Amino acid sequence: GEAAANGGPSSTDQKRSIYEQYVQPCLAELLGTTLFVFVGCASVIGNMDTLTLIQPAVAHGLIVIVLIMMFGEISGAHFNPVVSLCIYLCGGMELVLLLPYVVAQLLGGMIGAGLARVMYTSDLYGASLGGALNPTTSDLGKATLTEVMMTLILTMVVCMGVVNSRTRTPSAPFCIGLTVTANVFAGGLVSGACMNPARAFGPAVVAGHWAHHWIYWVGPSCGALLTVIFIRLLFGDQKTRVVLKTMSNVLKRKRERTS
Amino acid sequence: GEAAANGGPSSTDQKRSIYEQYVQPCLAELLGTTLFVFVGCASVIGNMDTLTLIQPAVAHGLIVIVLIMMFGEISGAHFNPVVSLCIYLCGGMELVLLLPYVVAQLLGGMIGAGLARVMYTSDLYGASLGGALNPTTSDLGKATLTEVMMTLILTMVVCMGVVNSRTRTPSAPFCIGLTVTANVFAGGLVSGACMNPARAFGPAVVAGHWAHHWIYWVGPSCGALLTVIFIRLLFGDQKTRVVLKTMSNVLKRKRERTS
Amino acid sequence: GEAAANGGPSSTDQKRSIYEQYVQPCLAELLGTTLFVFVGCASVIGNMDTLTLIQPAVAHGLIVIVLIMMFGEISGAHFNPVVSLCIYLCGGMELVLLLPYVVAQLLGGMIGAGLARVMYTSDLYGASLGGALNPTTSDLGKATLTEVMMTLILTMVVCMGVVNSRTRTPSAPFCIGLTVTANVFAGGLVSGACMNPARAFGPAVVAGHWAHHWIYWVGPSCGALLTVIFIRLLFGDQKTRVVLKTMSNVLKRKRERTS
Amino acid sequence: GEAAANGGPSSTDQKRSIYEQYVQPCLAELLGTTLFVFVGCASVIGNMDTLTLIQPAVAHGLIVIVLIMMFGEISGAHFNPVVSLCIYLCGGMELVLLLPYVVAQLLGGMIGAGLARVMYTSDLYGASLGGALNPTTSDLGKATLTEVMMTLILTMVVCMGVVNSRTRTPSAPFCIGLTVTANVFAGGLVSGACMNPARAFGPAVVAGHWAHHWIYWVGPSCGALLTVIFIRLLFGDQKTRVVLKTMSNVLKRKRERTS
Repeated sequence: GEAAANGGPSSTDQKRSIYEQYVQPCLAELLGTTLFVFVGCASVIGNMDTLTLIQPAVAHGLIVIVLIMMFGEISGAHFNPVVSLCIYLCGGMELVLLLPYVVAQLLGGMIGAGLARVMYTSDLYGASLGGALNPTTSDLGKATLTEVMMTLILTMVVCMGVVNSRTRTPSAPFCIGLTVTANVFAGGLVSGACMNPARAFGPAVVAGHWAHHWIYWVGPSCGALLTVIFIRLLFGDQKTRVVLKTMSNVLKRKRERTS
Repeated sequence: GEAAANGGPSSTDQKRSIYEQYVQPCLAELLGTTLFVFVGCASVIGNMDTLTLIQPAVAHGLIVIVLIMMFGEISGAHFNPVVSLCIYLCGGMELVLLLPYVVAQLLGGMIGAGLARVMYTSDLYGASLGGALNPTTSDLGKATLTEVMMTLILTMVVCMGVVNSRTRTPSAPFCIGLTVTANVFAGGLVSGACMNPARAFGPAVVAGHWAHHWIYWVGPSCGALLTVIFIRLLFGDQKTRVVLKTMSNVLKRKRERTS
Repeated sequence: GEAAANGGPSSTDQKRSIYEQYVQPCLAELLGTTLFVFVGCASVIGNMDTLTLIQPAVAHGLIVIVLIMMFGEISGAHFNPVVSLCIYLCGGMELVLLLPYVVAQLLGGMIGAGLARVMYTSDLYGASLGGALNPTTSDLGKATLTEVMMTLILTMVVCMGVVNSRTRTPSAPFCIGLTVTANVFAGGLVSGACMNPARAFGPAVVAGHWAHHWIYWVGPSCGALLTVIFIRLLFGDQKTRVVLKTMSNVLKRKRERTS
Repeated sequence: GEAAANGGPSSTDQKRSIYEQYVQPCLAELLGTTLFVFVGCASVIGNMDTLTLIQPAVAHGLIVIVLIMMFGEISGAHFNPVVSLCIYLCGGMELVLLLPYVVAQLLGGMIGAGLARVMYTSDLYGASLGGALNPTTSDLGKATLTEVMMTLILTMVVCMGVVNSRTRTPSAPFCIGLTVTANVFAGGLVSGACMNPARAFGPAVVAGHWAHHWIYWVGPSCGALLTVIFIRLLFGDQKTRVVLKTMSNVLKRKRERTS
């Protein structure tokens, strides 16, 4: 990306081709989501014998770090429909890629969950619902609220670390993955701390477990929309914020006139 | 901040407005402390079934890393009244922001603790005191000393990594979060290793648990003041240190005269 | 390496000698694989009393990070025959070093496993098979598939983070180690998540445990070859990819002619 | 350090004074070792209820990362007599500081162990020997070998990451801390994986536990000397290596003559 911005198209070969602009990013979302959901489901299925959340919390977080490092330069490394939505609404990606990304993510989720099914014995697979998400409480409002809050935190970190130019940081991949780990520790006991419809959709399809599946679409979507509101109204920089910049510009112009 | 220092106000839009200088930082402290206390309390409430400190130690540490990355450029990302006090006394922030920051932090602590209450069932919430801090020993002196030592380490890391120009490092957010994790492992069994009055105040209000609450104000404050003494007298650089710099300047001048 | 490219051989002493180009890298692979297999086996033998994968997962991952940092500049820090194969096939190393590296890695694996044997009592050593790999399922296809998938992920991270110039990153050592940890959490229960014939070969020799040893050669090799296909056909940059670059070049040339 | 090299003494105040060159480093070693041994002992004492090495392994590793970040620029952040010895023998520090550093480290170890004693109840303190090191096997040779190997790895990471200019890296603090964690997982069950006479000496004095104390001086010293041999003979760069550089220079000169 940066190289393309610096060198002109005539001097070097650096201008990104149609393949690299549209096809490769969707393939990266497909493979990345496949690997994310595969490792995620497998770490849950393999955790049946322990009583703690450590194994799934750490596995989900680390694989997110690694996949963002691997595919970030190619596709932005969303691997999550509500992350794509949130980044689009905060001005960080083109509309034309939104639907292809979501399709690739849901497809990747199914392939990843299928690979996890082939890998484990049916005993372990069945006992863990194949890594599918499941609220542990009968109060579905609490589970939904947990998904809202967890996704709010995750998408805030994504937008502040990747989109918002004032707070953008090269450590963003680490921060995003560490957020996943922290959030699973905070909310895993209530709703599983999914934060990602593709992570929920894949094992739901493969294991046929659809109970309360809507929570993992409604909760993360609301969390992502809350983030858009926070970023666009309050925490974005002059370019990203849609309000208060006129006022600040007005103030500045007044000051400049006086001096 | 750096951009503002380089570009002139007439050429670009980069001069920070009143909103970005005073309002946005306080909002960042409010939201950041909300999310910190929310994740912190939730990770303690959700840890009732395990016998180790791993889940709260790691969750507190990681969310600190992430929140500093997210809001550091906007407010400095203190989320802790004694950190704000310590940074102010070491010369790292304006006095005018100190009281608003502390108010925002205490308010954020209450909101975060309230969100954790809504999220968990009242059984789990009650059994864990809502994530409120509680010394496990009847010897309150030991609990207070633990808070002093833990906060001394935390605020030393903050001041050396962020304020003191000679040792300032871009890894400071990681170091500060990792200190929180290490300290919970070291002192969590004695006092909870709170190190933060806002983290104690929020769940104390929401769960109505005020027993020995003073420990979490007195201990961290003393630890922060010890750090100020260490930095200002011994470990600060020429600019931060208030003693011994005259002597060294005198010595240097003598040497320069001789040569 | 970089310094040698900048300065001419006449002006400075920086041109790499035969020792530094061929002997030192092989010694680094030997010592590095020794230390990796030593720490790996020791962390498995010392984990007999716990019921979780945390200790071996974290120990293998962290020592990988550290050894890559230590020897990456000298030998590339492969410590794994299929990683060397994969990097060679993706264009990241010379053919002449491939066989010496594999010999050094297998030798290092044996020395490391021997050191772990000397260190632990024979009771603990025997109970843990000396840290040798062992599929936990009688369905060897599942164990082999697990090794394929885990090695696919690991070698993808290596090639994207170190070889492919568009996605190359200074965080690669961290990413590679964190992948090891995540993968042990995902697949450790099925096959041990070895991903490395040298890690399997060393303790197999020292403990004389050869049951199903072929899995740890076949699985990782297939995973590495899958990675080569993915990188060379789909995810490599213009230089690394062997297809689709002509097409994109043709398209670009057409566009340039029109404008 | 870098600033001093760039700016002249007349233009700015940057020339390091005697205080900053000799007194401040020793104070940093004193306070740093105090905090390291304090957190280390406290994490061991507080771990009595769990059956795993996770808490002490992670606490020791993280506090090392943080303390190196904090004091690295001031004293080099050794906090360990054999690390100081090893760095001196590899050419990374002045002889005049060696003895003051070791004295400061041993003193800091005692203060840190004393603080841990005050912090915990005497029950917990006694049951854990106050965090003092203790081989778990009656075969003291195995315990000593473990210390040799663990310290070899640790000091190799230190010398390659900090002293040897070809492999020096800004990630060294992270690598050194992560090595500590990995090593405790690998060898903690046998000897405690101390790797540091000051860490052993402090609680030995305070708790009066001197059984097999010599292991923690002999093992780490031998490990550090092995590292010196590896670095000086095999893995150092042209400047650090004491052999093979003549040969390579001779070869290079021959080649230059021919061309």
